[in-house]
Amino acid sequence: MQKVAVIHGPNLNMLGLREPEIYGTTNLEMLNEDLKVKAKEINVKIEIIQSNHEGEICDYLHQNYKNLDGVIINPGGLTHTSVVLRDALASVRIPVIEVHISNIHRREEFRKKSITAEAAVGQITGLGVYGYLLALDALKEVLRKEKY
Amino acid sequence: MQKVAVIHGPNLNMLGLREPEIYGTTNLEMLNEDLKVKAKEINVKIEIIQSNHEGEICDYLHQNYKNLDGVIINPGGLTHTSVVLRDALASVRIPVIEVHISNIHRREEFRKKSITAEAAVGQITGLGVYGYLLALDALKEVLRKEKY
Amino acid sequence: MQKVAVIHGPNLNMLGLREPEIYGTTNLEMLNEDLKVKAKEINVKIEIIQSNHEGEICDYLHQNYKNLDGVIINPGGLTHTSVVLRDALASVRIPVIEVHISNIHRREEFRKKSITAEAAVGQITGLGVYGYLLALDALKEVLRKEKY
Amino acid sequence: MQKVAVIHGPNLNMLGLREPEIYGTTNLEMLNEDLKVKAKEINVKIEIIQSNHEGEICDYLHQNYKNLDGVIINPGGLTHTSVVLRDALASVRIPVIEVHISNIHRREEFRKKSITAEAAVGQITGLGVYGYLLALDALKEVLRKEKY
Amino acid sequence: MQKVAVIHGPNLNMLGLREPEIYGTTNLEMLNEDLKVKAKEINVKIEIIQSNHEGEICDYLHQNYKNLDGVIINPGGLTHTSVVLRDALASVRIPVIEVHISNIHRREEFRKKSITAEAAVGQITGLGVYGYLLALDALKEVLRKEKY
Amino acid sequence: MQKVAVIHGPNLNMLGLREPEIYGTTNLEMLNEDLKVKAKEINVKIEIIQSNHEGEICDYLHQNYKNLDGVIINPGGLTHTSVVLRDALASVRIPVIEVHISNIHRREEFRKKSITAEAAVGQITGLGVYGYLLALDALKEVLRKEKY
Amino acid sequence: MQKVAVIHGPNLNMLGLREPEIYGTTNLEMLNEDLKVKAKEINVKIEIIQSNHEGEICDYLHQNYKNLDGVIINPGGLTHTSVVLRDALASVRIPVIEVHISNIHRREEFRKKSITAEAAVGQITGLGVYGYLLALDALKEVLRKEKY
Amino acid sequence: MQKVAVIHGPNLNMLGLREPEIYGTTNLEMLNEDLKVKAKEINVKIEIIQSNHEGEICDYLHQNYKNLDGVIINPGGLTHTSVVLRDALASVRIPVIEVHISNIHRREEFRKKSITAEAAVGQITGLGVYGYLLALDALKEVLRKEKY
Amino acid sequence: MQKVAVIHGPNLNMLGLREPEIYGTTNLEMLNEDLKVKAKEINVKIEIIQSNHEGEICDYLHQNYKNLDGVIINPGGLTHTSVVLRDALASVRIPVIEVHISNIHRREEFRKKSITAEAAVGQITGLGVYGYLLALDALKEVLRKEKY
Amino acid sequence: MQKVAVIHGPNLNMLGLREPEIYGTTNLEMLNEDLKVKAKEINVKIEIIQSNHEGEICDYLHQNYKNLDGVIINPGGLTHTSVVLRDALASVRIPVIEVHISNIHRREEFRKKSITAEAAVGQITGLGVYGYLLALDALKEVLRKEKY
Amino acid sequence: MQKVAVIHGPNLNMLGLREPEIYGTTNLEMLNEDLKVKAKEINVKIEIIQSNHEGEICDYLHQNYKNLDGVIINPGGLTHTSVVLRDALASVRIPVIEVHISNIHRREEFRKKSITAEAAVGQITGLGVYGYLLALDALKEVLRKEKY
Amino acid sequence: MQKVAVIHGPNLNMLGLREPEIYGTTNLEMLNEDLKVKAKEINVKIEIIQSNHEGEICDYLHQNYKNLDGVIINPGGLTHTSVVLRDALASVRIPVIEVHISNIHRREEFRKKSITAEAAVGQITGLGVYGYLLALDALKEVLRKEKY
Repeated sequence: MQKVAVIHGPNLNMLGLREPEIYGTTNLEMLNEDLKVKAKEINVKIEIIQSNHEGEICDYLHQNYKNLDGVIINPGGLTHTSVVLRDALASVRIPVIEVHISNIHRREEFRKKSITAEAAVGQITGLGVYGYLLALDALKEVLRKEKY
Repeated sequence: MQKVAVIHGPNLNMLGLREPEIYGTTNLEMLNEDLKVKAKEINVKIEIIQSNHEGEICDYLHQNYKNLDGVIINPGGLTHTSVVLRDALASVRIPVIEVHISNIHRREEFRKKSITAEAAVGQITGLGVYGYLLALDALKEVLRKEKY
Repeated sequence: MQKVAVIHGPNLNMLGLREPEIYGTTNLEMLNEDLKVKAKEINVKIEIIQSNHEGEICDYLHQNYKNLDGVIINPGGLTHTSVVLRDALASVRIPVIEVHISNIHRREEFRKKSITAEAAVGQITGLGVYGYLLALDALKEVLRKEKY
Repeated sequence: MQKVAVIHGPNLNMLGLREPEIYGTTNLEMLNEDLKVKAKEINVKIEIIQSNHEGEICDYLHQNYKNLDGVIINPGGLTHTSVVLRDALASVRIPVIEVHISNIHRREEFRKKSITAEAAVGQITGLGVYGYLLALDALKEVLRKEKY
Repeated sequence: MQKVAVIHGPNLNMLGLREPEIYGTTNLEMLNEDLKVKAKEINVKIEIIQSNHEGEICDYLHQNYKNLDGVIINPGGLTHTSVVLRDALASVRIPVIEVHISNIHRREEFRKKSITAEAAVGQITGLGVYGYLLALDALKEVLRKEKY
Repeated sequence: MQKVAVIHGPNLNMLGLREPEIYGTTNLEMLNEDLKVKAKEINVKIEIIQSNHEGEICDYLHQNYKNLDGVIINPGGLTHTSVVLRDALASVRIPVIEVHISNIHRREEFRKKSITAEAAVGQITGLGVYGYLLALDALKEVLRKEKY
Repeated sequence: MQKVAVIHGPNLNMLGLREPEIYGTTNLEMLNEDLKVKAKEINVKIEIIQSNHEGEICDYLHQNYKNLDGVIINPGGLTHTSVVLRDALASVRIPVIEVHISNIHRREEFRKKSITAEAAVGQITGLGVYGYLLALDALKEVLRKEKY
Repeated sequence: MQKVAVIHGPNLNMLGLREPEIYGTTNLEMLNEDLKVKAKEINVKIEIIQSNHEGEICDYLHQNYKNLDGVIINPGGLTHTSVVLRDALASVRIPVIEVHISNIHRREEFRKKSITAEAAVGQITGLGVYGYLLALDALKEVLRKEKY
Repeated sequence: MQKVAVIHGPNLNMLGLREPEIYGTTNLEMLNEDLKVKAKEINVKIEIIQSNHEGEICDYLHQNYKNLDGVIINPGGLTHTSVVLRDALASVRIPVIEVHISNIHRREEFRKKSITAEAAVGQITGLGVYGYLLALDALKEVLRKEKY
Repeated sequence: MQKVAVIHGPNLNMLGLREPEIYGTTNLEMLNEDLKVKAKEINVKIEIIQSNHEGEICDYLHQNYKNLDGVIINPGGLTHTSVVLRDALASVRIPVIEVHISNIHRREEFRKKSITAEAAVGQITGLGVYGYLLALDALKEVLRKEKY
Repeated sequence: MQKVAVIHGPNLNMLGLREPEIYGTTNLEMLNEDLKVKAKEINVKIEIIQSNHEGEICDYLHQNYKNLDGVIINPGGLTHTSVVLRDALASVRIPVIEVHISNIHRREEFRKKSITAEAAVGQITGLGVYGYLLALDALKEVLRKEKY
Repeated sequence: MQKVAVIHGPNLNMLGLREPEIYGTTNLEMLNEDLKVKAKEINVKIEIIQSNHEGEICDYLHQNYKNLDGVIINPGGLTHTSVVLRDALASVRIPVIEVHISNIHRREEFRKKSITAEAAVGQITGLGVYGYLLALDALKEVLRKEKY
């Protein structure tokens, strides 16, 4: 069975609590539940982590990539600033899909540019927490089609 | 039954023929078939158009938006240049999802910026023609949840 | 009797329907009525067109400029992007006045720059649909004073 | 009866004397006469001042705005540089129309940007001294329609 | 016999009429005559079109490229703004030579950058209508040497 | 006893009247009263001026700096534009503290940059009229510690 | 009794040791002592932390904000680069005051821009370690007046 | 006898007092004495003014230019910011020479650009107060040779 | 008989040796032979030089322009950086045509801008060494038509 | 005996595994062995750490600098983004040499700028893992010559 | 007796021949005569060179600076591009005055910036060939006053 | 035996004489002696040249590259401006190492960018004249490992 990591980046532990007019009212536990249900449905094993530490996310990727078939990541604020995370994603050479809950093209100017998406297969933005579920579908499809 | 327009922008008629190393080998007919199958599956009526004319796409939106519940659009090269299309999308006030077959964040600098995505609910980029199918799912979800 | 073309650019057919908080509630028919009344008042013949197609507006200018004494144009989104329209306006060598319903200096950064106004005698912005009527007055004055 | 201030900014006392190929040959007295005639016609009281001092214009606005229904201003060179004047215009909360005799979009790059127009209802540019008369009409209309 | 399309972009129908101090006094019919003579001379079949519509030029390219050995194009104002045309030129995979009548490096800043030339084999600029004849020669040579 | 000038720059006479959602409802008289009370408390003589004239503020600084131990200034709109005021502040060589009532980092892009703060010891921004009182405390401390 | 967190960001543990010509000779322990004295004086409970880890500061904010009435933070080098910290500060929705010991407007160009201050009520810069004490006063005032 | 105005702009009254490491120790009276001696030598009448007010300098130019053959001006900080002064200098149509005591090319980036020099015949920078005397010589020469 | 100089700028002596995937395999001797044959054909005298020295090219132009009817130049890397060469070309006032072997619009960003082309009649780029032969034709035409 | 820290920044634990076409096939253990051999040779004690955490690298520097004579650091992706690391390096006041395995001037635009090198004595880039050994030599020389 | 070098940079040998509407009709010989007369008058020995070669000017400076008390240089087009010349001027540590015949602030944007003036004491621009004579006076004064 | 050229670019003949606070007190002869000793030690033949002429350095490279195994170059001021030198280095296709005596990342903004390093294997900056010796070691290693 394929295994996928879902990585929630900085401040995503505040989901549902933080600025609900932007990010909605679903909290992280609810989202994770939805992810597990979906994963089961499409027959994928998932491992979910959340961290506010750039370094921890890199450590996780380096230590686990050999047992992973793909990664879904919402890099939070690191999206726009972290060359380190971009390099980490590029270094592990498994397909990565980037997800953003809000539409980054409709917010502050600095949120429109994604440094990390340059190391990803693709990006889903603005479709709420549902975007994570789409990402799972997409990753499945990527793995099926390309073997990467 | 909800009705959704799928709009293929400039040069998408060349899909499968044009730069397959970037856009893949699926051609537009095959993609449209997939879209129709998917639409049926999720019980949505779709109407598909392709045009290389900015003006035609605007005309289509203005003439049809009252009978539409949502729009999926791949604006092709207009993505990065057309204020006219952006304003047309904003004017019709129904949910829009933007799709790109290739990952716009991995290509030329000028392709990273989307003017039209500012008038969309969200954007899916880099996930191949499969991104259209995800967009249909997403639009369905948007319509279910938000009534907009 | 002098003859003036009034050209409504892309999306102006949506006037009164589209974003009324920005563009007001007068629709295009009402505006055109006002224009005709005003034209009669100041003894000018007007011809009114609307198009969402850059190319159509150029075609119109090239085919009709010999019978026109002046042009009033609201280029809509083309204002900020179209070198083609600017060149078309410059090529016909009759006085042009550009009109914007909303104040372009109070909106998004990209709307502050007008490429087409560089080919016009002047510009009226932010004075609502009334700006068109002022433009008629102004064009009349320009024709009276300068013979161009 | 409504009362409107017409403010001629820096260097406008040189009108008709200064660079007539840009600004025309009408001098300030002639323009003011035209304004008074027009004001009478449309039944508006006007007060006209000219100053080369940013501070004086601000002082005037602060001291008189309670007795004014609107302002017509040609900020001259302050248009492109003065945050102070912009804030003064914003602070008095009565409708302001900005006028430029020459077309600012056809001159040096730095003249294309108006800082003060962001605090105005609208702007008329390039229509010569006649632009002031149009502004009076426009202000009348603004006051009629919006009560602001 | 090889076949070449010559595409005159927006406003080139005004050639000889428009700004002769920039573009000269030869009109489009005269230029087309010269092109036909030259084509005969070098034993090439040519098809000439003119359009002010970005979309029409794309449609033409997509519908005809299979019967064409090369393209000569003067994209007019689209040169500096149209990603759509650039993508259309890139999609048809036959050699393209871009021609400008005036020297784009000697005009406004925004005319110095060509978006479309990135999809062409080469560009000839500033050599008047004679540049088109040179382009025919060049295309012949490109076809001879490279088979592309 | 130490003597400090408090300089209210352009438009601060409108305090409490102007955009209260940004600047609060305290007016200038009330603020000045608070300043006098505070000054007495910490045993400092203060002189308060307000001017909308860049030149007047400079004149004041040049004519009075010999009798002053420090300056508290809110340069208003001059903050972002005035090299003249910056040079005047630098020329008098007594400690200067800049105060802004609203948080300049949360407003328009052009308000984030302070030209005058480069000639000041420090800056307090966003803490309302209370920022002035803090500035008095701070100036006292600066004078105590550094003798400058 | 109100409770306030004082957060010393990266490199502030080096205070008094590092570049004393910029940051002065007071070390962190001395500063913390002053803060505790001041807190007692104004009847506020404070908790002081220092960390060189962006992630740790975020973790701290997320875990403690429910028991905090406000935050004083000197984000050190993160001020100019960290969208993550900005989002963390925005997510906790309690008043934040940013402090810098040196005047960021007098140093390298890149230090003039604060990303984090956009998520703060206000900022105090250049007033040495005394700025922290002023921030405590200010926070007290903010809490008194606004209840936030 | 020819008549020349020497205009000392903002902060030049502080000459000799202000930042002597940049501007030297000669004060304004000494400089003016030197100017008068020099003027007598080369048989020119001079009138010297100093003002910290942009508006006053403009007023002076407008009121006196008819009796002046030329202007020497050190616009101080207005050099880099004042479109108003630039327009005033351009409006009077007599030769202007701009002088700076320090070398503007060796100081802060923003001092390298002169807005006012675009309205002057020439500029002398970095040659200390002696630059004024050279400017007198130069103006004499300009008047002799060109009659302007 | 007309006389034309062909100037090969820096590094063109390496033609055929250097990066053949960009510049092709023809070497400079072969190209010069082709040029001589062509010159004879069209009855023009040519003089060919190559230099890696900006100064030498200027010297050559200054010393020979009186005996030249036109210049064909490939300025190599100087194209993008040399104001000196641009001024030299402008100073000699005979028609200049700029040639580039590769398409400068398809290479690094810095190669897209030509400083020297602003001093030329026109430019031919991307058409290989054949571009030189076209330039000879073009120069002949320019001389015939315009007498310059 | 002198003591030097060698700090491998983020993602360097992936050396030899990650993008070998850029970084080569030597892995971190092999590099560290080479470093130890070299250190022994030149009679220097070295301590080697690797971390993906900006904060950990700062902590290490602060806690150990008193026992160190110099630092060799490859900051990885932090090179281009971390003001925090730059300040940490500046704060410890011992000589630092920055090393990059690949040539940062030959890669993406954003990799050309090093923020951290501004706090270093020098930088070695593009010489592979051998660059570390050169850095040891260089540090030895710096310590010998300058005592710093 | 003091000795001064006058260095005429690239294209100045064309003086009087080249673009007389910008540079006037005086040729280099005439200018050099004037310089020699002036030098004699103020009792200075001068050596005059002209070169179109950046390298030659550097060589000259390095070989002669020990026998020179000062340098007057018009760097021509090198002014705006040559770091090499700037470093050469800085390396010789004798006073340098830069001269431009035309007013660089009134020409193309790229001519407004002087790289070389940062290595000079001062600059005289726009005062025609007379500027050289003023520079001699100025250099004399610099040498008298500062001994440098 | 391998042969290496060491090329000292513009102004390096002034080494030890010029700005010793930046470049140290070692002069070029001493440096060359050190290079010869080092070369002998590592069994490499070296040829050393110095030139202030961009063209001479290119000529040297073109004429000698066939007999060279590698190049060490300090391009001086050409580093930041010369596309010509960059192309020359790229054209010879032997390994190049760039050396700078001072740390280019710690100086003026314009010195941080190296155009020439994009054509080099690597760069050593800030390590004084010792950097040249390291470059010799590095070049030896490059030749050993890669055969290039």
